[in-house]
Amino acid sequence: MNITSDDARVRLLEAALDLFTEKGYAAASVSEIVRRAGVTKPMLYYYFKNKEGIYSELMAQALTDFKILLKKYENVEKDVYIQINNMFRDIMNLHAARLKYARLIYAMVYGPPQGAPFIDFEEYHAIMAEMLNKMIRKGVENGELEDVVTEDFTTVLLSVLFFCMDTQIIKCSCMMDSEDVSRITGKLFDKIIIKRGEG
Amino acid sequence: MNITSDDARVRLLEAALDLFTEKGYAAASVSEIVRRAGVTKPMLYYYFKNKEGIYSELMAQALTDFKILLKKYENVEKDVYIQINNMFRDIMNLHAARLKYARLIYAMVYGPPQGAPFIDFEEYHAIMAEMLNKMIRKGVENGELEDVVTEDFTTVLLSVLFFCMDTQIIKCSCMMDSEDVSRITGKLFDKIIIKRGEG
Repeated sequence: MNITSDDARVRLLEAALDLFTEKGYAAASVSEIVRRAGVTKPMLYYYFKNKEGIYSELMAQALTDFKILLKKYENVEKDVYIQINNMFRDIMNLHAARLKYARLIYAMVYGPPQGAPFIDFEEYHAIMAEMLNKMIRKGVENGELEDVVTEDFTTVLLSVLFFCMDTQIIKCSCMMDSEDVSRITGKLFDKIIIKRGEG
Repeated sequence: MNITSDDARVRLLEAALDLFTEKGYAAASVSEIVRRAGVTKPMLYYYFKNKEGIYSELMAQALTDFKILLKKYENVEKDVYIQINNMFRDIMNLHAARLKYARLIYAMVYGPPQGAPFIDFEEYHAIMAEMLNKMIRKGVENGELEDVVTEDFTTVLLSVLFFCMDTQIIKCSCMMDSEDVSRITGKLFDKIIIKRGEG
């Protein structure tokens, strides 16, 4: 089989992601990654330098996708609760579409560090919390939302989002999807909405 | 140093817990566990049969402690929201006191299985959800709480509890404690309390 170099790059990333999530970062070797990808070791060294490099690239991709998604909601001016609801749906859908990336992130956040390069996973939380706080403040300014203590309401919203994401990671019987997160978030907003938007 | 057999058992459990959380279950060997515990291999075989046995015992301890805590709240009849708030404080305090156990559980739930014996971690969630649903239903019957759709409100409460526990596991800058979980849960209840208890 003839593999073009772009193919090789993508296959290496996929193989590494599979092996990191199945066996753990430390237990997955460069030999196994190239074998599963069906390419040669020099290919891996050429594109990613080493195992650390391929891991860093996977993590960078995940963060970039997340930031691109959020950009859409950066300048929300009105119908804030609808926009937050939409944003949560989008995040849940991205999470479901990229479940392997998410699984690797969870394993690195909650498992032993395994000698992997440091990634500041708190960034996900920080970006989300800042975005939500900003959107809720805007809603309060607009007179759409009650003047709640913003930070705690943000925590509740984030908790629900993360909980629903968790259920997908562990594939539990109580698994929730974007519809669930939307319904529950909607009910929370029902308690603090003053004025419904027309959007 | 002369080690009594009970000492040896406890030291083995502590050493295994340390190594499982630091290196991961698969990477921690029986040799390392006995070395760190300062006991001999036959001691480990005598008490736990093998590495699987010591892991199963750790997990059984954690679940038992959790069930003992919940027993206190089994027959709540009134002041339901106060009792749920107290229960959440207790759970957060147990979680903080047993952070290494919690860390191991998180690593096993979210990381690769690593050949460890199967543990049904969903049990924690199922027990909690059932307990909360029961308590909230009681509160509705009593006329203390609004007749909310129980399951979704339970999800919100559980989400907040789990989120606060997560922040302790990852030691993030947004770390929350039992006071935080109590304050936030209190605010959620404020929205659905009809009648304040006298308790």
